[in-house]
Amino acid sequence: MGRVTERRRVIRIRDGAVSTRPDTLVAEEPLEIRLNGKPLAITMRTPGDDFALAAGFLVSEGVLGRADELANIVYCAGATADGSNTYNVVDVKLAPGVPVPDITLERNVYTTSSCGLCGKASLDAVRTTARWPVGDDENRPVRIDLETLASLPDRLRAAQRVFDRTGGLHAAALFTPEGELLDVREDVGRHNAVDKLVGRALQQGLLPLSGAVLLVSGRASFELAQKAAMAGIPVLAAVSAPSSLAVDLAAETGLTLVGFLRGASMNVYAGEHRLALRTAAGRT
Amino acid sequence: MGRVTERRRVIRIRDGAVSTRPDTLVAEEPLEIRLNGKPLAITMRTPGDDFALAAGFLVSEGVLGRADELANIVYCAGATADGSNTYNVVDVKLAPGVPVPDITLERNVYTTSSCGLCGKASLDAVRTTARWPVGDDENRPVRIDLETLASLPDRLRAAQRVFDRTGGLHAAALFTPEGELLDVREDVGRHNAVDKLVGRALQQGLLPLSGAVLLVSGRASFELAQKAAMAGIPVLAAVSAPSSLAVDLAAETGLTLVGFLRGASMNVYAGEHRLALRTAAGRT
Repeated sequence: MGRVTERRRVIRIRDGAVSTRPDTLVAEEPLEIRLNGKPLAITMRTPGDDFALAAGFLVSEGVLGRADELANIVYCAGATADGSNTYNVVDVKLAPGVPVPDITLERNVYTTSSCGLCGKASLDAVRTTARWPVGDDENRPVRIDLETLASLPDRLRAAQRVFDRTGGLHAAALFTPEGELLDVREDVGRHNAVDKLVGRALQQGLLPLSGAVLLVSGRASFELAQKAAMAGIPVLAAVSAPSSLAVDLAAETGLTLVGFLRGASMNVYAGEHRLALRTAAGRT
Repeated sequence: MGRVTERRRVIRIRDGAVSTRPDTLVAEEPLEIRLNGKPLAITMRTPGDDFALAAGFLVSEGVLGRADELANIVYCAGATADGSNTYNVVDVKLAPGVPVPDITLERNVYTTSSCGLCGKASLDAVRTTARWPVGDDENRPVRIDLETLASLPDRLRAAQRVFDRTGGLHAAALFTPEGELLDVREDVGRHNAVDKLVGRALQQGLLPLSGAVLLVSGRASFELAQKAAMAGIPVLAAVSAPSSLAVDLAAETGLTLVGFLRGASMNVYAGEHRLALRTAAGRT
């Protein structure tokens, strides 16, 4: 099994002073994900939670939605000639009767729309493959106070196990709307950290995550908004900036998207009905 | 042609005060890269420099090394049923006689090694496909002063055109060892920013970039170290942390890898012979 961190020699330079010492780095290794024995994707990830990563990846792709659709996940012993390094290949077996999608990386979901390849096609692909529209809570939406939202980044940092040692990990965490930490995962790839969270939730029978808030330590790209939407998560908050397509996806799916969440400051790009905003006209 | 930024409505919250206004976001759209008409990869990128992005991607994959190996790059008019949105699909045509590699995303370069899938395989793939070993300057290496290196992040920020407006872009820049800015590119994806730099260099006949220093605004992953090595760049400096596999690749290829470059502080992980270090024992 791989390690989350590794040690390497580093030359430290501080105001011209040079010293050599061991340093702790975030571990990065390739992981190949197979579906019923067929290679599907390769991601560079931090070892650990590999089964959850594979399961979460398949939730994001619309292949998995419930724990009982998953027969098992195994490391591919025998995947190499000498039997070594088999911890970097996992095979996901679907339960009998679960359709094996025609997903290849050449024929990506983004290209299945009739409009060719554009932002609209990317949005369409999420809408047509999503199992649980995040707007499902329209009549009784999750509500979160601004004070609670503002407190989440500090709670995430307190829960991060590896970041302080390496500075090289992205973190993602799930919270209740009351600010209780449900789970936190870290990875050299931000999308992997979210896949690990979502995959564990699938394995525990917790999908859709319709009562959860997802916080990510970096930016909110389309890919992260897609993963939130595909897992049925109603609120995505990011410490840094969102992209245009992430905002468009949030607006289309009903996802609440918060960016630049720093102390009592934040920007809300979509789905503000889930936030307890106090305006000049009173509480919305 | 797509835009680098887009405007969206945002609700700003600052210490409880709520206001609504337009905001500038980094644009993100999918780009499909085709090779001689065959779909090869899809990346989520910030529109602009799309031909350079495609060319640089193919340098990183070992397909292209010289400008004359490239016949042309075109947007795929007619790629969609109604002829719209064709700016998100580019087709790269290789010059006659240039071998079309067997690159599919299912049969990734990382999986071609005999050891299966592991960090070592990833390193091997770079070594076997690299056109210009970066250690080629061994007898007369690039030398860079620490003061010059320390000045690069400020020079990058001064040259960034979009970052200050959106906070959502990764930047990558090429400098001479004397600190002169050669080129800077920005993208929602850090790997795309580097591909755009390298692709433009290819188009201008500047590969290998054996006299250049590459600075990236974020972390140094394996993928970024790979792109530097494949373009023959001898020095990669990052504002944030490197991963274990990036350090291993740097050590194996002879790439100088600097991380946490912040003011007069930095960590050197490999290739210190290109830095003018002053130690207790004198200048190395």
